[in-house]
Amino acid sequence: MDKKKDVKNSLANAEKPKELAMQLHPFYKGKIGTAVKVPVRTINDFSIWYTPGVAEPCKEIQRNKDSVFELTSKWNFVAIVSDCSRVLGLGNIGPEAGLPVMEGKALLFKYLGGVDAFPICLKTQDPNEIIRAVNWLTPTFGGINLEDIASPKCYHILKKLRDELDIPVWHDDQQGTALVTLAGLINALKIVNKKLEDVSIALIGAGAANINVAKYLAFAGAKYENMTLVDSKGVLHQGRKDLQESYPMKWELCMKTNKQGKTGAIAKALKDTDVCIAYSKPGPGTIKKEWVSNMADEAIILAGANPVPEIWPWEAKEAGARIVATGRSEIPNQINNSLGFPAVFRGALDAAAKKITDEMCITAAYAIAEYAEKKGIHERYIIPAMDETEMYIEEAVAVGLKATEQGITRHKVNKKELRKKVSENIKSSQETTKLLMSRKIIKPFQH
Amino acid sequence: MDKKKDVKNSLANAEKPKELAMQLHPFYKGKIGTAVKVPVRTINDFSIWYTPGVAEPCKEIQRNKDSVFELTSKWNFVAIVSDCSRVLGLGNIGPEAGLPVMEGKALLFKYLGGVDAFPICLKTQDPNEIIRAVNWLTPTFGGINLEDIASPKCYHILKKLRDELDIPVWHDDQQGTALVTLAGLINALKIVNKKLEDVSIALIGAGAANINVAKYLAFAGAKYENMTLVDSKGVLHQGRKDLQESYPMKWELCMKTNKQGKTGAIAKALKDTDVCIAYSKPGPGTIKKEWVSNMADEAIILAGANPVPEIWPWEAKEAGARIVATGRSEIPNQINNSLGFPAVFRGALDAAAKKITDEMCITAAYAIAEYAEKKGIHERYIIPAMDETEMYIEEAVAVGLKATEQGITRHKVNKKELRKKVSENIKSSQETTKLLMSRKIIKPFQH
Repeated sequence: MDKKKDVKNSLANAEKPKELAMQLHPFYKGKIGTAVKVPVRTINDFSIWYTPGVAEPCKEIQRNKDSVFELTSKWNFVAIVSDCSRVLGLGNIGPEAGLPVMEGKALLFKYLGGVDAFPICLKTQDPNEIIRAVNWLTPTFGGINLEDIASPKCYHILKKLRDELDIPVWHDDQQGTALVTLAGLINALKIVNKKLEDVSIALIGAGAANINVAKYLAFAGAKYENMTLVDSKGVLHQGRKDLQESYPMKWELCMKTNKQGKTGAIAKALKDTDVCIAYSKPGPGTIKKEWVSNMADEAIILAGANPVPEIWPWEAKEAGARIVATGRSEIPNQINNSLGFPAVFRGALDAAAKKITDEMCITAAYAIAEYAEKKGIHERYIIPAMDETEMYIEEAVAVGLKATEQGITRHKVNKKELRKKVSENIKSSQETTKLLMSRKIIKPFQH
Repeated sequence: MDKKKDVKNSLANAEKPKELAMQLHPFYKGKIGTAVKVPVRTINDFSIWYTPGVAEPCKEIQRNKDSVFELTSKWNFVAIVSDCSRVLGLGNIGPEAGLPVMEGKALLFKYLGGVDAFPICLKTQDPNEIIRAVNWLTPTFGGINLEDIASPKCYHILKKLRDELDIPVWHDDQQGTALVTLAGLINALKIVNKKLEDVSIALIGAGAANINVAKYLAFAGAKYENMTLVDSKGVLHQGRKDLQESYPMKWELCMKTNKQGKTGAIAKALKDTDVCIAYSKPGPGTIKKEWVSNMADEAIILAGANPVPEIWPWEAKEAGARIVATGRSEIPNQINNSLGFPAVFRGALDAAAKKITDEMCITAAYAIAEYAEKKGIHERYIIPAMDETEMYIEEAVAVGLKATEQGITRHKVNKKELRKKVSENIKSSQETTKLLMSRKIIKPFQH
């Protein structure tokens, strides 16, 4: 009886954000705006910020291009670039319909990471045009966050931009998702007392997210041969010759993974595995209870589809899973990219990094995991929640120090300076929001 | 003695913003950032602003594309697009060196007009690529402010974008400069008791600014035959056949203006004219005292070059000019684009206009002039100063109503609603800045 009620409540809770979103989006008419960063005491100050005074910083940058990072907001400007060809679980909804997501992302970037990110939804879905557009935008921006671009074109776009540009570029659906997933798994494995080197892992979905998850898992010690990936046509194995041409990154994984030579669909992939990591089709029912029952003891399930996970946690638990995580904020163990991108960019920007390397991302994963471990991990707390501000600071500092260690920064900062910068940038953003709320300049909810 | 001291002081004052700019730009590291517009009470609110709730506004926009103006910040997002091929008086300094100007512009847009404008400095100076870039950016933006793009390519870029896009597009160096200049001249003529229909006007400089000034002067009643334009090669007249091919817009003016068939350089153009409007080469000395002495009685001089006007006001006055205006903020009669663009866009955006027409710009000019006239115009006050907030509200309302009258808005707003919107948007931006200053979140000047 009680359990039924629980399930009903959970389902009802899962509906609530939808309703509120449709009440509140039209009320606020947007989630992010611009803000003045400098004093305006009288209009005379405009002669400093604008003409005639502004000519001097212009001339200085003309002399020494790198000084643009010191004399403008470029150091903290990040473009959230999307062609909106694969938005959340909604598919190819186009650039206007994708804007609420990119604006939400900008909100998270600012609130959680103090990053001045701006949504750029492009009216083109051609990979070469996306690359060209980003190139043209670079003078303004100190970093590029690619978002919700369909695979496989996203790999080429990312690679090309990473090669060409001397500012941090990443694709959050690749690096971001992978690092946060790795962080969650590191701690989940500690709880069930299994080792990454030993476990068998089924990766459900073989898109941008899981292809990078596999890479980061391997980076952290997991064995490719113990992984099994599943795409919409079934398990990846050496017989999937269709992929050789159509999707080389999957074909590569056909060769490296699935030592046992499994074939078939999700059910087969899950049988006897220790870990299930799903980034596939929104559920419920994408992963069935009976398949979870056939997993190994103390199974770990990360069901990451949005907005509805591949299997609801209560169903997975009933089927015997020990630890379940999803992407939803109202359920414990939220495996959410928001734990990654704000701090990774914060660290990269404050360390003046010219790239975001995979090593920086793996470092971020361990920093997230360690932070939770220190607070005390358990079944319902494998990863910090989004309001643990101190975590973002630790993570950003770790990322920035890794960049410094790798020698890919424009100049050196020491740990103390870095922590100060990171901490100020993150805290001032939250302080500002709270102040504007308390003064009702940000109006209270009207519902 | 006293006068000498005055001149010295004025020159010293004119240097001060330069020094301060180089102290304060590196201290604040940028003038504009992003800001959260919605409440974040707890992290649970992110399930409304981001996944899973955000999927609903996305789906709504997919169904009805126009709702993007209701559900996101697009309605108030303006891109300040420049290839930085002609920045202030600095010339073709490139996109990085131009960023301090575009950021300053974004600051003015926000502070004076409540517009969320974002600087976009493009790494291309090819006209077709600029057009393509702006097209790709349009899903995010509700308006486009072109800035500091060299002539003559700027005409083609503006025309093409105005034709193709269904959001307001203008080039501030054309429409913006022209409307503010017109506003100043309307009032200056009242003081000297001359009529636009009768006066002779020398336009020094025949670039994007003055070509549009001529157009707007004619629109408001001045006669083309009474105008004389001067470019770097001298007066425009029917013998300047070189322009037929190289610069058709100038050639058109060769045919229409300069009834007297003047030839020669600036000195000749100024002789016996009532009005001099200069947007040419930074001075001092571009316009010489002795030339001003040869102008008609009660001469009016608008010397608009930045950062230093073609002639200093005290020199022009000594030479007999009655009214002098410049682009500088520390001198009375600042003819500054900042009186135009924040309110024109505010009005256009709040009226949901799909264009900014020339009629809307002329309306803006008259609104500016009327506001000053009501307060009482005189030699040293022909135009409001930048801190007269109420002026922006009047101007924006007038512009929005003109758009409504012209039937070019996405929906109708009445005057009362429009005034409420305009007023709230402008005031909340200034209120926020003042609050953040008082709380030292925007740090005080350190000098």
